[in-house]
Amino acid sequence: MADGKLEDKLAGKIVDAEELSKEFKEHSVAEFFKKNKQMLGLYGKVRTLTTVIHEYVTNSLDACEEANILPDIDVKIDELGSEYYEITIKDNGPGLTEETVGKALGKLLAGTKFHRMMQSRGQQGIGSSGCTMLSQMTTGKPIKVITGTGDGKTISLQLSIDPKRNEPKIANKKDLTKNFRGLAVQAKFKGVLYRDSEQGALEYLRRTAIANPHAQISFRDPAGQKITFKRTLNKVPERPKVVKPHPKGVTVDEIVTLAKYTDSRKVISFLKKDFDRMGQKSVESIGKKVQFDLNKDPRQLGWDEAEQLINAFKEVDFISPGGDALRPIGEAQVGKSLQSIVDPEFLTVLTRRPQVYAGGFPFQVEIAIAYGGKAGRTVSGAEGMEKRLEIMRFANRAPLLFDAGNCAITKSVHSIDWKRYDIKDVDKAPLTVLVNFVSVHIPYTGAGKQAIADEDEVIEEIRLALMQSGRKAGRYISGKRKEREKQLKRELFYKYIPEIVMALNELTGTDKKLLQKKLETMVLEKLRLDEAEEVEELEENSTEENKKGEDDEGKDKKAKGKK
Amino acid sequence: MADGKLEDKLAGKIVDAEELSKEFKEHSVAEFFKKNKQMLGLYGKVRTLTTVIHEYVTNSLDACEEANILPDIDVKIDELGSEYYEITIKDNGPGLTEETVGKALGKLLAGTKFHRMMQSRGQQGIGSSGCTMLSQMTTGKPIKVITGTGDGKTISLQLSIDPKRNEPKIANKKDLTKNFRGLAVQAKFKGVLYRDSEQGALEYLRRTAIANPHAQISFRDPAGQKITFKRTLNKVPERPKVVKPHPKGVTVDEIVTLAKYTDSRKVISFLKKDFDRMGQKSVESIGKKVQFDLNKDPRQLGWDEAEQLINAFKEVDFISPGGDALRPIGEAQVGKSLQSIVDPEFLTVLTRRPQVYAGGFPFQVEIAIAYGGKAGRTVSGAEGMEKRLEIMRFANRAPLLFDAGNCAITKSVHSIDWKRYDIKDVDKAPLTVLVNFVSVHIPYTGAGKQAIADEDEVIEEIRLALMQSGRKAGRYISGKRKEREKQLKRELFYKYIPEIVMALNELTGTDKKLLQKKLETMVLEKLRLDEAEEVEELEENSTEENKKGEDDEGKDKKAKGKK
Repeated sequence: MADGKLEDKLAGKIVDAEELSKEFKEHSVAEFFKKNKQMLGLYGKVRTLTTVIHEYVTNSLDACEEANILPDIDVKIDELGSEYYEITIKDNGPGLTEETVGKALGKLLAGTKFHRMMQSRGQQGIGSSGCTMLSQMTTGKPIKVITGTGDGKTISLQLSIDPKRNEPKIANKKDLTKNFRGLAVQAKFKGVLYRDSEQGALEYLRRTAIANPHAQISFRDPAGQKITFKRTLNKVPERPKVVKPHPKGVTVDEIVTLAKYTDSRKVISFLKKDFDRMGQKSVESIGKKVQFDLNKDPRQLGWDEAEQLINAFKEVDFISPGGDALRPIGEAQVGKSLQSIVDPEFLTVLTRRPQVYAGGFPFQVEIAIAYGGKAGRTVSGAEGMEKRLEIMRFANRAPLLFDAGNCAITKSVHSIDWKRYDIKDVDKAPLTVLVNFVSVHIPYTGAGKQAIADEDEVIEEIRLALMQSGRKAGRYISGKRKEREKQLKRELFYKYIPEIVMALNELTGTDKKLLQKKLETMVLEKLRLDEAEEVEELEENSTEENKKGEDDEGKDKKAKGKK
Repeated sequence: MADGKLEDKLAGKIVDAEELSKEFKEHSVAEFFKKNKQMLGLYGKVRTLTTVIHEYVTNSLDACEEANILPDIDVKIDELGSEYYEITIKDNGPGLTEETVGKALGKLLAGTKFHRMMQSRGQQGIGSSGCTMLSQMTTGKPIKVITGTGDGKTISLQLSIDPKRNEPKIANKKDLTKNFRGLAVQAKFKGVLYRDSEQGALEYLRRTAIANPHAQISFRDPAGQKITFKRTLNKVPERPKVVKPHPKGVTVDEIVTLAKYTDSRKVISFLKKDFDRMGQKSVESIGKKVQFDLNKDPRQLGWDEAEQLINAFKEVDFISPGGDALRPIGEAQVGKSLQSIVDPEFLTVLTRRPQVYAGGFPFQVEIAIAYGGKAGRTVSGAEGMEKRLEIMRFANRAPLLFDAGNCAITKSVHSIDWKRYDIKDVDKAPLTVLVNFVSVHIPYTGAGKQAIADEDEVIEEIRLALMQSGRKAGRYISGKRKEREKQLKRELFYKYIPEIVMALNELTGTDKKLLQKKLETMVLEKLRLDEAEEVEELEENSTEENKKGEDDEGKDKKAKGKK
């Protein structure tokens, strides 16, 4: 305890709790993000504009895929004045109904995605409403929206947000006669900047096209230049299934919460109905491990009993989460995209099997390593143009351009000992590493959705994928290096043959042609022996590597999960 | 527009907007952060535990200072099982009233800090409620609270959160007879880990003590070891003043919002009453620059008129924000703290004048550079123990231990060309750089409050401070280097004198002693000349540097602000 007298003397009168409590207030989530717009990634002039495009484009892609429509998205950026832009985005998705349009674009924490366990790009119900708020904060103007459901119901309206209540304000609503299916949004922003840079809107759309070959995206920049990223795949990705939590990743709290709201009357049926991969055999095995009767009413399930269930789950083998919950881009498509853009000397693509992490959320890692050709970023260095490592990060096919230093993907890449794969200085290698993290729930570090939290399970899985692909890349690179060394050796040997022939001829008088022939045979023999040794070495390594690979695979076959 | 036929054929039936709108739902901010606890910094086993300590300790310090009490804070961590801990924190602050305790610790986005423009460590009303939620999520248990206001009213209670409604649930409330002033919180957490590491609770408290010499903090770790960071300053920092927005940083949106809620009947009085540093002369000058009458009712102020005001503000000189809004640690205290902990060869401390950034928020940068001695982090490298650059980041005196890569402070430090200050490889220098960013509103990148967004004004100001201090450090370091070089030169010259004496003696027969003396005089003369040249050079540089310094100061005197 502090010395009361000292305080009185040195620090004046103490203010009491009653006095302080008068300043106690509540605030809405809209007020919170209005004051902290940097938490939505809406800071930095270039970054802000790219983030706005990101929010609208991901929403359009999600909407189209949910409705089973091949996405056609038009993006336009117009410069209205100094650091003053208008953004227009139009899609051919299902549109929004009159009832939902206000909340979807004008109320934070509202939407279709938060409560579902289904893979989608958006997951919070914050992003596009944040853009509406930014537009009114910087220009005083509402956004304009046209939405049509394709059955003749097309409306136009103006939309803004009342931050104090976190509620949409709709004005000028008009029924349009034209038949239109999709959503078009037009919004103005001040204090932002368009740049054709590594973190600009164009690069964002280019990467979106790489990861979404089924989407057609056209873009017109402020200078009027048009570019269209054409669709290369005429098939909408199958709608990912809404999944139940996987027992290997679920937490005690989630069991208790799920049990409170279940329709089942017994824990047995609750387990079978509300969890993924829970068969009769698993339930029987669980029943033997817990200290209570599984015929119990789940609504009566206490914390301790739920904890017993979790401990039992740990001892039971469950099949990995089903593939139909997750929709990766796919090895063939990733390969095709990178081949056409990067045109590398060597390319390896890998889509790992689904895993689960805390919360029972399935996730999956896709990876590509491209070496040589146009791989890597090109920067101007001390000795002209130089190559640098390029990491292309995606989450559920949406490109991540910012906050790289904080992201599980970047951390995983930098945690790998690339020297083992014959890449001496990875930062300066002509290397493009693409990672797509696919999940029902991406653990973003912030509401701005630009970096994935480095949870242990996430890091481990990305590392495994990198190592598996790294070994393949390493074999190519080391093969290339050895070929070059052999070539040098051969050239060296041949260079000295004529001199040795001359010398030997002078000493012994033996015929020059004979000497030449004999020496050539010797050199060839020597080179053959070297090669055989190398092949042997390589085979040994590769057996080891295969073994490692098999271990990985073996692990894959069972669901791994940590609490 | 997409080809409807193609879609039908290839991708099945289109799902319409009506169907999709059925899944539209709203969710509470508590549900949001429960599902995204990583956004509160509550991820990673060690990090989570440190973050919990951080939330409680900053709340205690804020409460004590607001009540004008010298803080005494006791922190205890008990290990209850594997990755299962209990945390107990007790302070001697003003306590919470029965009316506010529930919301303060059990409702997100509620508190005294969000709506005020006043410097404090907390600013969101999220942190400690997030800890309550984490406790119930991982252990199923409520937290225990004892709060006393020092006038005999002491209560104990158990507290948890209803996430669906974001409302506190209070149980077991009891009136205690014992007289107690302060707040004591006891909470249990699973899935966390205590480590005595660079990002552990002990290091967090050590840094808290560095930046808060008026606080006494005692800590007992899970092994029972006790450490007390003693108070070295018997004075509560003066309570920072609640400030009005500074005209140089305010936005159009803020003027419009303020005008809507003002009591003033004319824009003239609104300007004078609701803004910082707005005198009669400034208002008159503004009146000449805008196209409307300042006698207008502020409630009628339109966006365009507010924009005219902003443009007028830009052309008027305002005094910098007042110092009484900001409470830096102070150069003397920072120096004392670092001297005692780091004991460096060289130390320079600088507290810059307040500036403003977007939103009219005043901010101020404090900086210290320590070189040599125990400065820098010590790591075990390839050649034994090696030194690495250490960056100690603080925001309003609260240590920032995580997300360094994303923080404006780290980015500023790495953007400096340290070679100019005679530091060749800054990453491997025995250097500790302390930066305390003080503001009425810290632009944190996330709700976890561990990194400051790299807004232009923030980066610029930290860089200026670093350069100003860097020059001083550079002068010391280069002086030291030159002294060493001179010493080497002298030794080299003297080493060869005897040889030259011998040679000359043999050639000319001159007396050895005479030769020795003459040569020594020559060497001394040569060294003196070198030195004089260096001094001249140094003086030239330092004149230039002083000029630069003055320019900085000159800039400082006027408020700088960008929109």
